[in-house]
Amino acid sequence: MNLVKDMLSGKRLALARLISKVENRDSDLPNLFTELYSHTGRAQVWGITGPPGAGKSTLVDRLTAELRKKGKRVAIVAVDPSSPFTGGAILGDRIRMQQHSGDHGVYIRSLGTRGKHGGLSHATKEVVLVLDAAGFDVILVETAGVGQTELDILRLAQTIVVVLVPESGDSIQVMKAGLMEIADVFSVNKSDRPEADQLVRELVTMVSMSPHDEHSWMIPVKKTEAVRDVGVKELLVTIEQHQLYLTRSGKREMKAREFLKNEVADILTERLNESVTSAFETTSGKELLEQLYSRSIDPYRAADIISKV
Amino acid sequence: MNLVKDMLSGKRLALARLISKVENRDSDLPNLFTELYSHTGRAQVWGITGPPGAGKSTLVDRLTAELRKKGKRVAIVAVDPSSPFTGGAILGDRIRMQQHSGDHGVYIRSLGTRGKHGGLSHATKEVVLVLDAAGFDVILVETAGVGQTELDILRLAQTIVVVLVPESGDSIQVMKAGLMEIADVFSVNKSDRPEADQLVRELVTMVSMSPHDEHSWMIPVKKTEAVRDVGVKELLVTIEQHQLYLTRSGKREMKAREFLKNEVADILTERLNESVTSAFETTSGKELLEQLYSRSIDPYRAADIISKV
Repeated sequence: MNLVKDMLSGKRLALARLISKVENRDSDLPNLFTELYSHTGRAQVWGITGPPGAGKSTLVDRLTAELRKKGKRVAIVAVDPSSPFTGGAILGDRIRMQQHSGDHGVYIRSLGTRGKHGGLSHATKEVVLVLDAAGFDVILVETAGVGQTELDILRLAQTIVVVLVPESGDSIQVMKAGLMEIADVFSVNKSDRPEADQLVRELVTMVSMSPHDEHSWMIPVKKTEAVRDVGVKELLVTIEQHQLYLTRSGKREMKAREFLKNEVADILTERLNESVTSAFETTSGKELLEQLYSRSIDPYRAADIISKV
Repeated sequence: MNLVKDMLSGKRLALARLISKVENRDSDLPNLFTELYSHTGRAQVWGITGPPGAGKSTLVDRLTAELRKKGKRVAIVAVDPSSPFTGGAILGDRIRMQQHSGDHGVYIRSLGTRGKHGGLSHATKEVVLVLDAAGFDVILVETAGVGQTELDILRLAQTIVVVLVPESGDSIQVMKAGLMEIADVFSVNKSDRPEADQLVRELVTMVSMSPHDEHSWMIPVKKTEAVRDVGVKELLVTIEQHQLYLTRSGKREMKAREFLKNEVADILTERLNESVTSAFETTSGKELLEQLYSRSIDPYRAADIISKV
C-alpha cells in the first residue's frame, strides 16, 4: 500500500500510521514528506495555550463544534510537554473521542512523549504538516504552559489564543509579560467567576500599554465560559478577524517563511544530534570524551574534532 | 590585559567581563575556553527550581549564608527564562547584593534574556564553567518553572532541589510527575502554612510509589521556612548527603560525562543555527526559501541543499 496516497484519499488508518511514523522519527520521513509536502500550505493553524486547569480542552471542543456547523474539517493536536507520561493526553483523548465519535470531519491526536533536543516540538510541527496535507481546514494545536518547548510548538500557529482563568495566581502574574509576547487573542475563561472582570481589565490595560501603532493588531480580550458554551461564537469571530488581519498585513506570508526556515533548521539539528551521539559511541569518540573528562581538551576543540568524525 | 589569567587570579572585573562575553556569545569564546577549561571540574553545582513565589531566592540566600559559615566560596546564578525581560532577575540581584555586599566569598549573577535555539541554557552552562574555573566551591543555579529550557539548564547540576509551597495549586498537581523526574531533594517551603504537612505526605507517598531498589536514592522531603531560617541547616545536610551518594554510586562521573557530551552538542547546534540563518540570507538561500514556499521542494530536500551551502 502507498501510505501517502491512501492518506490523501482520506483513509484514516493511513493518516494515523503516517503520524505515528512522524512521532517515532521513522527513517522514511524524508521520502514521505517529498510525497506529501506539495499538498500542504492550505490549512489554518491555531494555537491554544494557557496554564493547566484553564479549560483549554473544553474551549477547543466548543470551537470545534462551531467550526463543524460551518462545515469546516477540524484536526486537534493535543500536546503535553510538561508531563513525561502520555496519560493526561490520552485521557483527554478518550473524553473527546466520545463527543466527536463518528464525525469524520474531526480528527484528534495526542502527542505526549517528551522529545529530547526539542524533538517533541519538531514532531508536532510535522504532524501538523501531515494533517494539513490530509485536507483539514483548521488545525487546533493545544498545549499547556509557556516554556520554550511550548513556544517552539506554537511557532507553527498563525493565530495563538492564550486561555487564562481568574485567580490563576502568582505564576500567571509572572507569565503575563511572556504571554503578551505570544498571544494574538486572550480568552478569559470561566468568566462566571467574580475575579473575571478584574483579570479582563488587567489584560486590556497591559495590551493598551504595549508599544503599538495604527497598523498593529491590538490583542482582543474575550470573556468565555466554555462549559456553558458562552462567548465561544464571539471568540471564533475574533480569531477569524485575526486570520483576515494576517492576510491583509502580509504577516501570513512572513510567518510561513519563518516557519519553513525553522523546519529546515529543525531537520538539520535532529541529524546533528544523531551524528554527535553516534560519534561519541565510536572508539575515537570515547577517547575524546575521556580527554574532555580529564580536561586535556576543551569542548570547543572537541566540537571541531567531532564535527569531522 | 589577559582576561582569563586575571579571572583566575581572583579579579572580579575580569570574571564579570568573561561572563558577559559568554552571555553575548562572543566570537572569542573558543579561545577563552581553551585557556580556562583545565581549571574547571572542581565546583559542586546545585540546581534550585520550583514555581514562582515558592521562596527560592530566600532559600538560596539562607543556604549561601550557611555555606559561608563553613568557609565555602559561593556563586549564585539566577536564571529567569520565563520572562522576556531581565527586570525580575535584576531586582532579585539588587536585594541580594545588599545582603552579601562586601563579601568576596559570594558572587551573584542574573541571566534573564531568553536565548533563541536554547541559547540561554547553553550560555548558563558556560557561565557555570567560568565560575567553576574561578574557584567557587558551590555554584547555586536558581531557575523558575520546569519547562524544557529549565530542564536543560538544570542538566548541568549534580543535585537538584525542587522547592514547593503548600497551596501551589493545579499547576503543581500537573507538574508533580515531571518534578519527580528531576528532583534529588524536595523542599516544602513556607512550611508554617497549614497545608504544609499534607503536601509533605503527598510527596513522600509519590516518592515511595516510584520504582526503586536498594541502590536508589530515595528523594528526601524536607520542610523549610526560609524567611525564618527554619530547616535550612537540615536541607544543607541532605544536599551534602546526596553529593556523597553521587560520588559513592559513580553517578557523579556519569553525570559529568553526559554534561560534556551535551556541551559539545550545544556548541555544534549553535554553529549550525548560525550557518543555516546565514545560508538563507544568500541569493541561493533566498531562492530555496521561495521554492519551499511554493511547495516545489520539501524541507528535507532543502535541508540537504542548505547543509551543502
